[in-house]
Amino acid sequence: MKPLGIAVLGSTGSIGRQALEVIRSLPGRFNVMALAAGSNVTLLEDQVREFRPRFVCAGREADYLRERLRTGAVGARWAEMDEMAAHADVDVVLVATVGAAGLAPTLAAVRAGKAVALANKEVLVMAGQIIMAEARRSGAQLRPIDSEHSAIWQCLWGERADAVARITLTASGGPFRDMPPEELARVTAEEALRHPNWQMGQKITVDSATLLNKGLECIEARWLFDVPLEQIDVILHRESIVHSLVEFRDGSVKAQLGVPDMRLPIQCALTYPERLPGVSVPRLDLKLIGALHFSAPQLRQFPCLGLALEAGRRGGTCPAVLSAADEIAVQHFLAGHIRFLDIPRALDDALNAHVPVMSPGLEEVLGADAWARSFAEDWVKAKA
Amino acid sequence: MKPLGIAVLGSTGSIGRQALEVIRSLPGRFNVMALAAGSNVTLLEDQVREFRPRFVCAGREADYLRERLRTGAVGARWAEMDEMAAHADVDVVLVATVGAAGLAPTLAAVRAGKAVALANKEVLVMAGQIIMAEARRSGAQLRPIDSEHSAIWQCLWGERADAVARITLTASGGPFRDMPPEELARVTAEEALRHPNWQMGQKITVDSATLLNKGLECIEARWLFDVPLEQIDVILHRESIVHSLVEFRDGSVKAQLGVPDMRLPIQCALTYPERLPGVSVPRLDLKLIGALHFSAPQLRQFPCLGLALEAGRRGGTCPAVLSAADEIAVQHFLAGHIRFLDIPRALDDALNAHVPVMSPGLEEVLGADAWARSFAEDWVKAKA
Repeated sequence: MKPLGIAVLGSTGSIGRQALEVIRSLPGRFNVMALAAGSNVTLLEDQVREFRPRFVCAGREADYLRERLRTGAVGARWAEMDEMAAHADVDVVLVATVGAAGLAPTLAAVRAGKAVALANKEVLVMAGQIIMAEARRSGAQLRPIDSEHSAIWQCLWGERADAVARITLTASGGPFRDMPPEELARVTAEEALRHPNWQMGQKITVDSATLLNKGLECIEARWLFDVPLEQIDVILHRESIVHSLVEFRDGSVKAQLGVPDMRLPIQCALTYPERLPGVSVPRLDLKLIGALHFSAPQLRQFPCLGLALEAGRRGGTCPAVLSAADEIAVQHFLAGHIRFLDIPRALDDALNAHVPVMSPGLEEVLGADAWARSFAEDWVKAKA
Repeated sequence: MKPLGIAVLGSTGSIGRQALEVIRSLPGRFNVMALAAGSNVTLLEDQVREFRPRFVCAGREADYLRERLRTGAVGARWAEMDEMAAHADVDVVLVATVGAAGLAPTLAAVRAGKAVALANKEVLVMAGQIIMAEARRSGAQLRPIDSEHSAIWQCLWGERADAVARITLTASGGPFRDMPPEELARVTAEEALRHPNWQMGQKITVDSATLLNKGLECIEARWLFDVPLEQIDVILHRESIVHSLVEFRDGSVKAQLGVPDMRLPIQCALTYPERLPGVSVPRLDLKLIGALHFSAPQLRQFPCLGLALEAGRRGGTCPAVLSAADEIAVQHFLAGHIRFLDIPRALDDALNAHVPVMSPGLEEVLGADAWARSFAEDWVKAKA
């Protein structure tokens, strides 16, 4: 088989690095055609030297990298991410960028009919309707990389679209799942970054502590699987072994399980429809785990979850506003400028101040994103 | 859509009755072409009057039923089960008979290329190799009805055959799962029939208490899914919510879950590849269940499980011998002639006394069955 051309966008982040590990474990299967990273240029340089991509994109530090690579025998060309994503020799595009950065390249890849392995949550939260409409038009396939959406996706293989009755996303509950709501006011950034089950980036780790992340995932699921938000549930599952569940209309439920290791969903998205013994991860042994626990999340304890679901119900540009305001609020929480419970307050205020545009185009989505960032910055300043 | 012609073999047993309930819940979808039952002739009479099948088979009480039906306007013809199973107007054959009785009709249905919904465990335990070879030849599809095999089957939809790494069958552990092995010597038939999770026939309920049933299911799974016995595991799961699991070679695991209700797997087998909102069963709510438990079965507590796996490993006619000897031993245990722990003793002796035939034909399988029954009867007599 001819190796598949792959573009890895966001190659120096947590997902990007693990994706390259998966690619390394499957020699001959992929040809890394393009690498893009917005930060950590020294790691990007190593990756370029190892994988010899045809295209490189290095964001703000492009000049530094250009200088460094000139001395070697590396013949990579410079390109923008959306150019890489749509290139004829690229078959699979991994979008592991963060925030709004993934929007344009995802759209370019989708329009070009690529297989798009999507780890950039904000893309569908902000522009799910636009992306999915383009995918239906071009025949592009979206393959989710989030463990929850990968689970749902896997449970839907071989099932008919009209058979789905309900999707249940599991949530570990993060570090504060057992904390009484009144104590949440005092938690620190350090405590919020101590996720019990998953090793992830800082922003998503805080979003897991507020459960905003789970609310955004409900919105993502709504677009990815074309299921109304009313048929999407969240359940607390502290062990993070059952990654999500699908209930079908005959009452049967399917779940996907595994040790919490992002390399599994990454590999699944990259090698679909095959399953390969690529990366070596510990096997799931339920006998050792002993028990799996499930409970209902309390909105009083996790107000961000309720806010995200509300933004999803309002629709239009509301989810984009929520997501952008959260990015700013979390930055300031991590920097110690605001407290943990200020995050939902800022989001609530942003949502209420926003005048949503229904069925927005890309420009309007980006406008709402910019508005929300500015709103949240002002909110934090007013607070200080 | 033209209604599918269905033959229900074993229509008065637990599975047969629930299958007719499923059929009733999906009006216009099935045309009950044939009903067969070996006992409970009064219920069979009711079923014939309700469903007006073209063919009826009533085993030993055929004369009585013939007399009863002559007076009504019921124009059913008498037929043997294998004739029904292969009839041109029959699309789906539900084999819900018990013991060796299902063998000939299953083989007839498989040879005729029918969709065969199989609830008769002994068919594959006794003659899995023969049945599956015929199914490959004719293109007949075997659709399992056991909750465990239905779970595995559902988890395999949309997956490639070479992707399977391991199958894990769940076992509730039956009524004696928490009992110290030394107390098992004294348990009564009444206690053995008190299954904590499932309402089933007497024989299978005792087999669930000894876990022989789970061993037989491993042998069935081996044939149904073409997976070596070494890649099939058993795990205790007291809640009977996770009906079984499949591990794929990338480390991903899929499971099928649901409330313990046989109408779900029955409907799934009858309506495949569709999932329909037919019978109304309680929805699974993991938040209410709270926890799912898993542990390793102890062979010391469940010697019958080890014997069944050993019979499966020896192969040939050994599983047929085990299954037939068990049928006799369980009868005598229920009648109070032998004790609970005599069941594994009788099976062990039968297995060791048997001279197996490898790759047996149907005659040899039936010969082994008859030998084992006679051996077990003698064993019980010698004991008394």
